[in-house]
Parts: sequence; structure tokens; C-alpha cells
Amino acid sequence: MQEVKAYGAESKEADFKEITIKRRDLNENDVKIDILYTGVCHSDIHAKQNDWGNAKYPIVPGHEIIGRVTQVGNEVSKYKIGDLVGVGCMVDSCQTCSACEEDMEMWCENGSTSTYNSKDKFIGGHTLGGYSTSIVVREEFVLSVSEKLDIKGVAPLLCAGITTYSPLKHWNVKEGEKVGIIGLGGLGHMGIKFAVAMGAKTIMITTSESKAADARRLGVDEVIISKDADQMSAHANSFDFILNTIPVGHDVNPYLALLKRDRTMCLVGAIEPLENIHGANLILRRKNLAGSLIGGIKETQEMLDFCAEHNIVSDVEMIDINEINTAFERVQNNDVKYRFVIDMESLKN
Amino acid sequence: MQEVKAYGAESKEADFKEITIKRRDLNENDVKIDILYTGVCHSDIHAKQNDWGNAKYPIVPGHEIIGRVTQVGNEVSKYKIGDLVGVGCMVDSCQTCSACEEDMEMWCENGSTSTYNSKDKFIGGHTLGGYSTSIVVREEFVLSVSEKLDIKGVAPLLCAGITTYSPLKHWNVKEGEKVGIIGLGGLGHMGIKFAVAMGAKTIMITTSESKAADARRLGVDEVIISKDADQMSAHANSFDFILNTIPVGHDVNPYLALLKRDRTMCLVGAIEPLENIHGANLILRRKNLAGSLIGGIKETQEMLDFCAEHNIVSDVEMIDINEINTAFERVQNNDVKYRFVIDMESLKN
Repeated sequence: MQEVKAYGAESKEADFKEITIKRRDLNENDVKIDILYTGVCHSDIHAKQNDWGNAKYPIVPGHEIIGRVTQVGNEVSKYKIGDLVGVGCMVDSCQTCSACEEDMEMWCENGSTSTYNSKDKFIGGHTLGGYSTSIVVREEFVLSVSEKLDIKGVAPLLCAGITTYSPLKHWNVKEGEKVGIIGLGGLGHMGIKFAVAMGAKTIMITTSESKAADARRLGVDEVIISKDADQMSAHANSFDFILNTIPVGHDVNPYLALLKRDRTMCLVGAIEPLENIHGANLILRRKNLAGSLIGGIKETQEMLDFCAEHNIVSDVEMIDINEINTAFERVQNNDVKYRFVIDMESLKN
Repeated sequence: MQEVKAYGAESKEADFKEITIKRRDLNENDVKIDILYTGVCHSDIHAKQNDWGNAKYPIVPGHEIIGRVTQVGNEVSKYKIGDLVGVGCMVDSCQTCSACEEDMEMWCENGSTSTYNSKDKFIGGHTLGGYSTSIVVREEFVLSVSEKLDIKGVAPLLCAGITTYSPLKHWNVKEGEKVGIIGLGGLGHMGIKFAVAMGAKTIMITTSESKAADARRLGVDEVIISKDADQMSAHANSFDFILNTIPVGHDVNPYLALLKRDRTMCLVGAIEPLENIHGANLILRRKNLAGSLIGGIKETQEMLDFCAEHNIVSDVEMIDINEINTAFERVQNNDVKYRFVIDMESLKN
């Protein structure tokens, strides 16, 4: 076992501070990664605050990890020392159930291991994430990252990126289709970039006039202000797909009204109760309300390759690790465009 | 114009009573039908009570109509005098929009004409349904009915039948798949018959132990009592498709938990607000909540042919027309197995 520096919180109320954690010695198929950058995801905040009731302390969040390989196990074949790699939301799964066999490890029937806050089956306790200087991960859960991209902006692709790319692919968004992105934050701004790159007629749907200019800069063809009933009714029954990134409970009925018959609105943000959905908004025109969660390892690699091909990264604001407590507050106030990324060098010195 | 006997209500509060209504003289492509049997649909009650805010009085409900052709227009080619035919929820649509071209006239972009309570574009006023001795309908909206079946039980197929058949076909229910039917009423009992005939492992999901025996008699392989948390959790993440026929707002979260990943629960009953849906129940395992409404004319004919092939009819209780007010009360009290059908002979004498 090796001791490494990390930033952790001892309780729901405590601030993050420097702590020492243990990483396992490498097994045959493990890769050790020196962490360069870690994105700050809204989930990190939910987890630290125990919003989902499963927090384990000390918590070391971080599941948008970019780094370089510094050591490999004897049987590792995909990676070598010096490779630029990423680690996302998962670090292990059974690899044998039907979900794993269909490359959807996030729904592993025996339970996938999250990058932080899961049971650590190697050294006991719970897994500790990317707010740390290094991590050891089995090679099947390590992603290859192109050297061509601005790698600071690659970190958020490991969660915000795959979370938005996966549903756009799953619901088969095609060139020329009319795609709506609801909400302009860490997820929404990635949804826009992907939908535009896929050739969709991409439309920002937002409550806030102030976000219209930003959305246009990100490449949308049009902006609908959702509080304006005339704008909303002008677009009734016209969307081929809607990606709903709103991170809290809200009234989805006005958005369902925008869908064409037989089409889908997919939730990727609101892991909490939604206001009363009117059955008629699904029954009339046979509409679908769905949800989606990250993606499997194979699709995450496909997404990273798509980003390299289309020169897509997240828009980020860099912070040092000692700014993390303030960053959490700013994320909660929606005060970031669009994702904080920690320069992990700041923890090493 | 011809005067015919009907049973109508003059207001939301009034009882039904015998009235005289007008039917148009036949146009070239019209079929005149002597009505033998008309099913009583829960929608008839919603419409009469103005629950959907669009009632027009006097209202003559009835959109599950079986009868014989007594006259045909000059250009009618599909039907001849004496044919056994049906009329369902629609009697007209534009026939040119993309929905009509795709055989989904119920979503006609120019507005389909409902069998009752729609604008009557031929003789003015509003359309009047099957609680009457005869009706005139353009041939494209007339269905062919097999003489092989017990035709009293065919009437409800025109609404309850197609409403349950269509989603089972649309979501591609296959032999051996595990299909849940929630609710055992007019819709639910048809859902069971179709799912069983399609070869699905069909499971009744009901709050009521008293319905279990009936469901078994109708052919289900198993019954789950939804109030029993142990039974529900034993079936978590296991259903390929769920048809939800509950006619009122309810908590869908426990039922979403029963679906396999990537699978759909389809609402066909609750045209009203549903209790708070938890986003996580869709996001985790990428589940879908959808709705569906009747089916197009082509699919309705396919359903009737399927019923003839598999000897499927609705379980009905026959009434005379003067029992209709009591029948409405009994439908509202869930006191019918499973559909009332009016013997229209009782209005002719």
C-alpha cells in the first residue's frame, strides 16, 4: 500500500482539507495514474452533503480524472507508462453479467464500483476519488485520451460529457433533426456541443434571457425562453428529441408539449421527484419520458474519440485544490461557466 | 336528412333519455349502419360530465359500435348491404397530413373527427355517437367485423381493444417476454387477453387480492399484489413491458421499479396528473414512461382480424338502453365485468 495526498471531508458539515489516504499496490491488471486534473461535478456536492443517504466519510470525491500512467501491472496490455488517460465514474464491475456483457457496466447486476463512495473490495473501506494525487484502477476502466485536445477541458467529459453524449446517441439523433437542450450548465453546455457536432438543428430552451447569448456562442441555432408562452406554443409538437439537464425537480409538462409524436424527452439531471406529470401529455401523440445515466466504458471511449475528432472539450474554470470549498458554493449558486477543474499540481507542492 | 332515435343527455347533470337526432343523407363514399350493439366506455362518462371541458349538449356518446350495413354511397367499394361492420372512436380525418399518411389518423394534424362531441362538418352542430339506432360514416372509417365471433363482445374492441392492442404491438411484445398488466377493468382485461395471445408471460399487477382469481381465469401466468412490498421487490427490474390501465392519477414509482433497464411502461388510462415521479426511477437503468391512445384505422382492422384469428372478444354484461343511467353509476363504482354493451334493439322497439 502507498500513502498519497488527497483532499477530503470528515463529515457532511466539515470543509475539505488535506488528508492522507491509501492506494493499493498494483495487481496484474492495474494501472497507476498520476492525476493532472480533476473536474468538479455537482454529484460531488450531493455526495459530500449525503443528499442520497449513502455517504461514507472521510469522502474524497472526483470522478472526472485526467492523468498520466506511471506504473502498470504485469498483465496490462492497453496502456504503458506515460500514456495520457482518464477515469470516470466507475472503477470496477463484475464483467460477466448481461449488463457488463452489453457494455453497460453502470448497470452491472452485481453492482458496479463507483470511483468514490463505493465499497473498496481490494483494501477495505470505501473507494476514494480524484481529489488526490494518484489513483490505481484496473485497466478495463481506464480510458485513452487524445494528446490533441486541451486536456484541462477533457476532465469533465468523463462525467458531464458521457452523460449527455450517451442519450443523444441512444435516441439516435441525426443530422438535421430538431433537438432541444434544456438548461445551460455543466451538462447543458456539453449537450449543445454534441448535438451541434452531430449536425442537429440545436435549440437552447432556458428560463433565462441572460443565457441566450452564451448558448448562441456555443453554437445553438435558436433560443426559446421557456417562460414565454407564445414562443413555447410556436414550437409545440416539433422536437425530435429533448435533453433535459435541469438538476432539480421541476414541471416537465410544458417541455413534453414541445415533442413530436412518438418522440422522447430524456432526463439526465433531476435525480429527485418531478412535479405532477399530466398523463395526457404522454398519451396524446404517444410521447416518451425517459432518463439516462452516464454510459458504459466502450461508449465513454467512443465519446472521447468523437471529441478528439470534433475538437470538443468542456468550457472550464481552473482552480487550485484549496479553492474547492468556495467552488462547491459557487456550483450551488450556478456561478461557473461551466465546470470547475482542479489543477492537481496544487496538491502536490 | 333522416331522423333517428337516440339516447342523449341535455346537460352534465341530466339523465339520459330518448331523443330524436338527425343523420345526414349518404354522400358518395358514405356507409349507413343499422346499429346492433354499442359498448359503454369510461370516456362516455368523462364526456357527459364535461370532465375534459369540451362537452357539447345534447350529448349522444358511444364509440364502440357494431352494426350491419343498410345502405352505401355510389363510390363505396369496401362494403355492401348486409356486411357486419364496426365504428370506433373516429369518423373522419384529413387523410392527407403526415399522421394520416402514416395510418395514425387519431393524431391527424388538422384534427380528426371524433365519433361524438366533435364538430360535424357535414350537417353542422356536433357529432353524435352510437347510443342511437343508426349512423352514417365515410367508408374509410368503417371496420370489417368477422361473423365468427360473438359480436356482442366485439363492440368494446373498437376502443378498449385497440387501446390495449396498439401499445403491445408498438413496443413489440414478443413470445416469452414478461409483460405486466396493471389494473383489471375494461382496458386491463383486454390487455391480458392480447398479451396472452401474443405468447407473453403475462402477469396481473393489482392492489386487490379479490381480482387475482379473475385474472387467472383470463389467462395470466401470475398475479402480483402491488400493496405487498415483498412481492413487488421480488419482481424488481424484471419486466419487459408494462401496460398501465389505471384510469386515475396514481403513484407510478413502484411500477417503474419493476421494469428491466431500457424498457417501457405505457399509460393508457390516466388522462390526468400523476403523483410525483422520481427522476431516479427513469435515470437509473434508462427506463421509459410513455402513453398511448387508441390506434389508427389500419391497426384497428389488424386488431379485429387478430381477434377473429385468436377468438378474442371482450367480457361483457348486456343492458337495455333504458339502463344506461344505472350503468354509468356502476362503471364509476367499478361494478362491471368488464364492459357494458347496450343491445340497441331495446331502442328500436
